[in-house]
Amino acid sequence: MNDTRDALTRKLQAFKGLGPEDMAMLQDLQRLRSQIPAGKEVVYEGQHSHTAYILRQGWACSYKRLRDGSRQIIDIQVPGDFLGLRSLLLRASDHSFLTITDVEVARLDRHRMLEVFRRTPRLAVALMWAASRDEATVVEHLVSIGRRGAFERTAHFLLELGERLKLVGIGNGSAYPCPISQSILADALGMTAIHINRVLRQLREARIVVFRDGMVEFQDMKRAADITGFELTYLDQSPES
Amino acid sequence: MNDTRDALTRKLQAFKGLGPEDMAMLQDLQRLRSQIPAGKEVVYEGQHSHTAYILRQGWACSYKRLRDGSRQIIDIQVPGDFLGLRSLLLRASDHSFLTITDVEVARLDRHRMLEVFRRTPRLAVALMWAASRDEATVVEHLVSIGRRGAFERTAHFLLELGERLKLVGIGNGSAYPCPISQSILADALGMTAIHINRVLRQLREARIVVFRDGMVEFQDMKRAADITGFELTYLDQSPES
Repeated sequence: MNDTRDALTRKLQAFKGLGPEDMAMLQDLQRLRSQIPAGKEVVYEGQHSHTAYILRQGWACSYKRLRDGSRQIIDIQVPGDFLGLRSLLLRASDHSFLTITDVEVARLDRHRMLEVFRRTPRLAVALMWAASRDEATVVEHLVSIGRRGAFERTAHFLLELGERLKLVGIGNGSAYPCPISQSILADALGMTAIHINRVLRQLREARIVVFRDGMVEFQDMKRAADITGFELTYLDQSPES
Repeated sequence: MNDTRDALTRKLQAFKGLGPEDMAMLQDLQRLRSQIPAGKEVVYEGQHSHTAYILRQGWACSYKRLRDGSRQIIDIQVPGDFLGLRSLLLRASDHSFLTITDVEVARLDRHRMLEVFRRTPRLAVALMWAASRDEATVVEHLVSIGRRGAFERTAHFLLELGERLKLVGIGNGSAYPCPISQSILADALGMTAIHINRVLRQLREARIVVFRDGMVEFQDMKRAADITGFELTYLDQSPES
């Protein structure tokens, strides 16, 4: 069967069933579409755009560039994720985005988001839930960089990515396409490219996970979760009890 | 003059002027008050409480405890900040809180927050703005731990704290009371207690900032900002242009 729902719809339905009016608004929110090729910056730090995007297809990453030229990647965005949601509220965007692959985005502005809050409060709550998951993911990255060793940190990141993709129908959690370069992975994990290369080899030799040729494949998900202390709780994607 | 506004009201008025109805709702939101002594946990990771708090007085910190017993502090909360806002939307709280001093909190629940969105959308936007600043602060901590050296990271953190406190009327940015221990500072900056002790000495000897006896005093704010690349943009607290 071919699932024709867009990624954000799939994600929000994991929260709770939305009604027909919510679904119509969700489609309407994704009306202003555009294509952006790989390797382009989407929102610039310090810009006063008050614009955000829904990433409909493709991959991107959010980052901050430091004065010494180094870069910290804050999060990877996969289909169904927001880009720059905070810039709807903050006067200036606090970070930049880079498209990793060719992407399709839908543009949001503050006015349209307020309309959602007024007309479809249930959808508004679902969107805030999705934003809360994104925040919890950034918090987890902070914990990883602050307190997890390079080996655990890398495995944790790949486990998390698998679960996030599974929620929008890409891969099955243990095997998934992953177009990110080692340089992006290094900047996401606060490591050097040489270091990440060594850690990926260690993970492969330990028969935990192989990341090669744009594919991630876990050999042993359970051991990976044990080693890293990975828990799904913060992604909040299990069925509501 | 004695400013009798509570800290959250002061903070939100920096966003934009709220009307009388918003102000009344903001007071009503802070009606369910309680006192918690220093050193207590407020929200536990994994709990299904759907409760958050406004910190009216005192200091707290949010953290995650790792299985090996280590702790990563995510952020420090000062008067006017939220505690656990995400737990109103996520099924389980994704981190814990610790009171650093005796505190006064006001309890929020999901129902009351939705009422704010329905009845006072302007206040709702102001509250989301405050939550967005908190997220931007966590992102900045991720950047600090991932890409800033210990010296810059510590100075950056103390500059940021000064600006956040100034916004709610505590200190003047360059000198402020700071009741956090070196152990908490270390866990916030992803360092050891011995390391943070050495870095604070270096900052003192470089005549940049002194943190002693519960007070932070900058000797040279400009040089501190230059060294760390500190910019106010992400705190979004300058007057709207």
